[in-house]
Amino acid sequence: MDDNSLIEFRRTLHQNAETAFLEFGTAARIEKALEGLPVTMQTGADAADLSPVVGLPDAQTVAKSIDAAIASGADPDRVRYFAEAGTAILATIVGDKPGPVWGIRTDIDALPVTESDEPDHVPAALGFNATNGAMHACGHDSHATMGVGLLHRLADRDFPGTVKIFFQPAEEGVRGAQPMIDAGAADDVDRMLAIHVAGDMAFGSVIGSFEGGMATRKFLVEFHGRASHAAGTPEAGRNALLAASMAASALMSIPRFSSADTRINVGTINAGTGVNIVPARATLTGEVRATDDEIVEELLARAIRIVEGSAHAYDVTHTFAVSGQSATLTPDDSVIDLLVASSEQDERITSIERSEMLAGSDDANLLIRHVQQRGGVGAYCMVGASSPGPHHSSTFDLDERSISVGIGILERVIRTAPTGKL
Amino acid sequence: MDDNSLIEFRRTLHQNAETAFLEFGTAARIEKALEGLPVTMQTGADAADLSPVVGLPDAQTVAKSIDAAIASGADPDRVRYFAEAGTAILATIVGDKPGPVWGIRTDIDALPVTESDEPDHVPAALGFNATNGAMHACGHDSHATMGVGLLHRLADRDFPGTVKIFFQPAEEGVRGAQPMIDAGAADDVDRMLAIHVAGDMAFGSVIGSFEGGMATRKFLVEFHGRASHAAGTPEAGRNALLAASMAASALMSIPRFSSADTRINVGTINAGTGVNIVPARATLTGEVRATDDEIVEELLARAIRIVEGSAHAYDVTHTFAVSGQSATLTPDDSVIDLLVASSEQDERITSIERSEMLAGSDDANLLIRHVQQRGGVGAYCMVGASSPGPHHSSTFDLDERSISVGIGILERVIRTAPTGKL
Amino acid sequence: MDDNSLIEFRRTLHQNAETAFLEFGTAARIEKALEGLPVTMQTGADAADLSPVVGLPDAQTVAKSIDAAIASGADPDRVRYFAEAGTAILATIVGDKPGPVWGIRTDIDALPVTESDEPDHVPAALGFNATNGAMHACGHDSHATMGVGLLHRLADRDFPGTVKIFFQPAEEGVRGAQPMIDAGAADDVDRMLAIHVAGDMAFGSVIGSFEGGMATRKFLVEFHGRASHAAGTPEAGRNALLAASMAASALMSIPRFSSADTRINVGTINAGTGVNIVPARATLTGEVRATDDEIVEELLARAIRIVEGSAHAYDVTHTFAVSGQSATLTPDDSVIDLLVASSEQDERITSIERSEMLAGSDDANLLIRHVQQRGGVGAYCMVGASSPGPHHSSTFDLDERSISVGIGILERVIRTAPTGKL
Amino acid sequence: MDDNSLIEFRRTLHQNAETAFLEFGTAARIEKALEGLPVTMQTGADAADLSPVVGLPDAQTVAKSIDAAIASGADPDRVRYFAEAGTAILATIVGDKPGPVWGIRTDIDALPVTESDEPDHVPAALGFNATNGAMHACGHDSHATMGVGLLHRLADRDFPGTVKIFFQPAEEGVRGAQPMIDAGAADDVDRMLAIHVAGDMAFGSVIGSFEGGMATRKFLVEFHGRASHAAGTPEAGRNALLAASMAASALMSIPRFSSADTRINVGTINAGTGVNIVPARATLTGEVRATDDEIVEELLARAIRIVEGSAHAYDVTHTFAVSGQSATLTPDDSVIDLLVASSEQDERITSIERSEMLAGSDDANLLIRHVQQRGGVGAYCMVGASSPGPHHSSTFDLDERSISVGIGILERVIRTAPTGKL
Repeated sequence: MDDNSLIEFRRTLHQNAETAFLEFGTAARIEKALEGLPVTMQTGADAADLSPVVGLPDAQTVAKSIDAAIASGADPDRVRYFAEAGTAILATIVGDKPGPVWGIRTDIDALPVTESDEPDHVPAALGFNATNGAMHACGHDSHATMGVGLLHRLADRDFPGTVKIFFQPAEEGVRGAQPMIDAGAADDVDRMLAIHVAGDMAFGSVIGSFEGGMATRKFLVEFHGRASHAAGTPEAGRNALLAASMAASALMSIPRFSSADTRINVGTINAGTGVNIVPARATLTGEVRATDDEIVEELLARAIRIVEGSAHAYDVTHTFAVSGQSATLTPDDSVIDLLVASSEQDERITSIERSEMLAGSDDANLLIRHVQQRGGVGAYCMVGASSPGPHHSSTFDLDERSISVGIGILERVIRTAPTGKL
Repeated sequence: MDDNSLIEFRRTLHQNAETAFLEFGTAARIEKALEGLPVTMQTGADAADLSPVVGLPDAQTVAKSIDAAIASGADPDRVRYFAEAGTAILATIVGDKPGPVWGIRTDIDALPVTESDEPDHVPAALGFNATNGAMHACGHDSHATMGVGLLHRLADRDFPGTVKIFFQPAEEGVRGAQPMIDAGAADDVDRMLAIHVAGDMAFGSVIGSFEGGMATRKFLVEFHGRASHAAGTPEAGRNALLAASMAASALMSIPRFSSADTRINVGTINAGTGVNIVPARATLTGEVRATDDEIVEELLARAIRIVEGSAHAYDVTHTFAVSGQSATLTPDDSVIDLLVASSEQDERITSIERSEMLAGSDDANLLIRHVQQRGGVGAYCMVGASSPGPHHSSTFDLDERSISVGIGILERVIRTAPTGKL
Repeated sequence: MDDNSLIEFRRTLHQNAETAFLEFGTAARIEKALEGLPVTMQTGADAADLSPVVGLPDAQTVAKSIDAAIASGADPDRVRYFAEAGTAILATIVGDKPGPVWGIRTDIDALPVTESDEPDHVPAALGFNATNGAMHACGHDSHATMGVGLLHRLADRDFPGTVKIFFQPAEEGVRGAQPMIDAGAADDVDRMLAIHVAGDMAFGSVIGSFEGGMATRKFLVEFHGRASHAAGTPEAGRNALLAASMAASALMSIPRFSSADTRINVGTINAGTGVNIVPARATLTGEVRATDDEIVEELLARAIRIVEGSAHAYDVTHTFAVSGQSATLTPDDSVIDLLVASSEQDERITSIERSEMLAGSDDANLLIRHVQQRGGVGAYCMVGASSPGPHHSSTFDLDERSISVGIGILERVIRTAPTGKL
Repeated sequence: MDDNSLIEFRRTLHQNAETAFLEFGTAARIEKALEGLPVTMQTGADAADLSPVVGLPDAQTVAKSIDAAIASGADPDRVRYFAEAGTAILATIVGDKPGPVWGIRTDIDALPVTESDEPDHVPAALGFNATNGAMHACGHDSHATMGVGLLHRLADRDFPGTVKIFFQPAEEGVRGAQPMIDAGAADDVDRMLAIHVAGDMAFGSVIGSFEGGMATRKFLVEFHGRASHAAGTPEAGRNALLAASMAASALMSIPRFSSADTRINVGTINAGTGVNIVPARATLTGEVRATDDEIVEELLARAIRIVEGSAHAYDVTHTFAVSGQSATLTPDDSVIDLLVASSEQDERITSIERSEMLAGSDDANLLIRHVQQRGGVGAYCMVGASSPGPHHSSTFDLDERSISVGIGILERVIRTAPTGKL
């Protein structure tokens, strides 16, 4: 696929944006775009173990997304397959020389954002803006395209080692990386890379690796009490709404830590069914973050205690599930060296920094850390994309040249990096 | 219409149950059933002033209900008319002799309850159970039928005075009576009656009037804050969820009153949009009740203070709207006398009580009180209906003979009561 | 002792008012006033088992009260004895004929109220007002005097059966009756009476028995966390203040009961030591009440759950102790008959009611209930005393003739009541 | 005074430790130690304007402290004077050459800590430990001594310019500096220094200046509601305890800031008077801190909103007073240069750092900032003192040689610093 075809591919993904775990058409299109290449594709439980995942989309939403994907022109059988099996794809190509196993994380999901249809918004002006309430407002359409493009470039197999592209679902909510780890997809990786476009960096600038960030745990709590008529027999009720309210207040009172920057949020509460019914059910979602991986566990433990205590106080039962997670990132200098050196080869790249401390939480960090813990190395490259609007906003857009810039950086690293221990 | 036709009519309403302010098909059917009678019908703003009502169904729900009503066979034009104009009908018939103006409240809405389809549930066995998630689980189908049947009986105009049937929407939530009062529908009424089937009373028993009850105010609160990324700039957010949680806790701490029985409930909270966003919006519904009409106002005032304080504390704006209300009931002995005397004329009625203190809140009380405050009289008659399941449950059912019993009680009162000041 | 001596005795108690469990001088004076009578006195653990009582006065307060009692002229050795052994006295006199065992509860403690020293306050005008911050603002000085006076009258032993006077400490806080029950003091009682002056009833009026009332449980909660510097290491703290705040809010949200009138109060919170220290300790006191003895237990169980949950949420330990309690009262008609008949013999008594439903909580009810549960009977007589100020206020006072009225009612009942099963 | 006299002086202050605003004997002793020197002393409103200060000790505490100070041997008249006028002393000495005005802050108050009396605690072993519940557990006894010692050294007036020693009360709670600023004491200062012993730094080490720190605001909130009997008329109460509980929870939910490190603490709540009384009064103390002087104002504004909202919600009145405050510190390089150079002259000083970022809040920063804002310069020197226990603990102690080290650093700076604009 040449650059124009890749841009076409990206625009199709963009127009048919699909949110976390609903990337049915996206996965089908990726799969189809790789047809004919010397690539092994693993899907389903081989790519991601979704069995412990909570908060997956409900049947009605899945059905609606299947219909939409098919209506948009994706292969109906494959759409249904991915809806059944899960949307992660692990695409592996083996070079013709011995060498390390590379993992490259390219995430594929969109956000529940309604895209701008103003004429000054380029996708709208060019007619490929999404109109279904989802939007690639974080550039994952370009990442998926980089993965596809890179495999096309490497189809000559003229490189040492092996390259595994992690087409990861559900980066939003940091929910998709752990299932790929749980499926063993990263177990044999020696060098893990992630790549991301940065709308707030000018096109032509590159950062070798993001570092730091915040480890996070997202959680989903359900309180189950007992309904009763609020006037007739209020004493017969067990009030799940009050348990959730108490938990929300108490969660926000988890103290600051002197040894790390932390965050707490209760994102949503949905409780009760009617004005005159003692609320029997409440759902609460929240998250904790810290610039330290042990402290985020401590925050999670405190959150669990608070939820337990709130449920006990109101005599309701509860479930507490971690629905997403990520870690901090400590990239390896050796990998940054490779990425910087590769970037220097592209004359479009005019500004290169080795690394930068960034806020935010990306579960690519889990993949990189998993590889590091097994003796490997990793880093997370940022490619400037000059967006007019901020990430996650309805006017996010990207300089499409960043796609080929990203592919180029990765390709040169893979073809030319030393094959020995870094 | 004979008794069989009325039962047929009731079953049609039952099968096509419609909840508060969505009684489009129900109103169309009532209207049609009165065709050809010497009855004046007022609808729209003449029957109910909905302009101050909050929490009306949204456009999507209205559209869906229109479709369903038309699909069920109701007149499409009239369905659309009632969807536009409101579903209250004030049907007036004038007797051929001078006399008092009677008002009779017959409510017409159903509940958001899924009806049983078990074979031991009579409507299911006979094939007229509702299958759309709404259910006449409080017998309003029978009340609407009584109103229709009574007008047919009185079509001979052989009675003194005037009879106005208040086909009232939205009794559930106590939301429909006040708009009819606001429209002036009860301003000329001298004698206000309400009638209700009682599932927990055996068929054949009658209570002249319910009395007491709890005055109530239902309220709808919206908190509007400001969203922000919970990790990026938590300080930029204004947290509506926490305002709602604080309000919920504080509302429940409104003290007991030594001088009346009271109730407080926070029925629902819906807050926030995503786990990593500081929640910008929260909606809370609640209610206060008291066995005293001044104390319910005091409770409402305290609730308002709490909501104001919670909004102020979290620097969010808010709206507070009373979405439903009712009053306590003090029926008039003179009217009870009439209802008891009339009941004694029906040999099917084997047990008669003058009145009984009951819990619960019905906004017919507002109509009766309105009339009483203008010098009139009123009472609220209960007719035993032997339901196997409790009111508001999926197995509520009624002995359909209670319909003709109710019509008979009312008819005899109207035809025979003294016309002078009671 | 003649009436004047009794009045003198009452005034001495009044001037040296002592609050709950500090009635050292009061007990010493009662004991001394009974010297020479054919009365058996039980004190210490034989009269009241204080071992499970929580919240007893601290050593410093005890020492101060000992000094004050001695300074006021009470016998130093006996003051120290009662400070050590407890202040309950069970005084028994046996009649010369066989008959039932009577128990008569006369409470002896004062309130932490500063007495008026205005000239229109009779005790001040006559120079026997208390000046130590405690005050007999509920008339227990007169009750103790009735107990003493009755024993003097009965010293001739010309009555059937046995009379046991329960000089009970700590009625305020409903804390003294249970220890007397626990000591077995009421186990052999057949007929339990309590007597109380009523400031809001005119002198000359009597009510045979108070009835109803609210069962209550008072509780004392301590939360123990861990202090830490609020800026240096906030995460090292375990916040007892927040646990107490959460508990306070949640306690107030215990729902109304449809089947009884209830009350909840959190009376005090004392938490923390300094503005920049994460609070390690919090103390909370509260109470629940209900017009039903089972529901008060249910309320207590809910309070305990809330405290447990709050402590768990904040990872602090806690203790929960019931510090006071009482029950509702159902007096026996047979005993009311006796009290009414006796009252009719005193010409100063011009108005007699059999019984009246009253609010309030007195732990004499526990004694009466204990006797009833073992097959006995009981009632609680109210004697009008025409107080200018309300009970528990600084201007409470009583018509001192109510003392001899009360003694007379009791004396006649004991001398003349049938001795068989009532 | 030679070094031994100074150590003797410090030990006398140590043994008679006095907490914030109660430094009556301490002030009297400082004043006396300066007798005969060419020093002008300002006290009372000339040294500190206490009129806006909230939370000053109550009359009973003041009386007790007067007695204790006199009993310890301080001059009775001067003790009473300082109790009346305030305990700040501004001591000025003018050199015999023209030059800058130096301000030197030496704080004088102790902490409410009970000092160790274990034999391994040096003050206990040497018999000068405090036994009155207050303790110089932060070394202010040594600071006051440095101030006295420095004035003795400079009594020869052989230095350019003027030196003003700020003997400041109430550094604990950061309450004493602002009143000295308000009195104008720092208005003419060109170079403001503070000096502090550091128990966690080894003797022989010096840091030219502390920098950073946290700006802070301490606050005192009082809620005033209305008492009522919790069972009799709960509805008549206005519950201050619940307002305080709500405020406590909400204060802890003030969000983290992305742009600064922050702290929140609710240090104490004291509410209510009895278990069966609706609590009419509650007192809450708290603090906010930030590593940014604008953000601490924002935190304070949010705290005020929360308190206002909580009071409104429960219909109680409130007062909110800032009881203490401090700022962050940006020391001037020019002053650090002087302090470092001076330190290098003392052979006992073996380790010198220019500056260090420290947590904690000292209101000397307000003085330095005040001078900086008027065109002057300043810094805050730390002198190692090798304490076995941490600051604010019962085993804090200091190497007494740090006193002469500190005096020497200051003396050399004053005698030798350039007199022109730094």
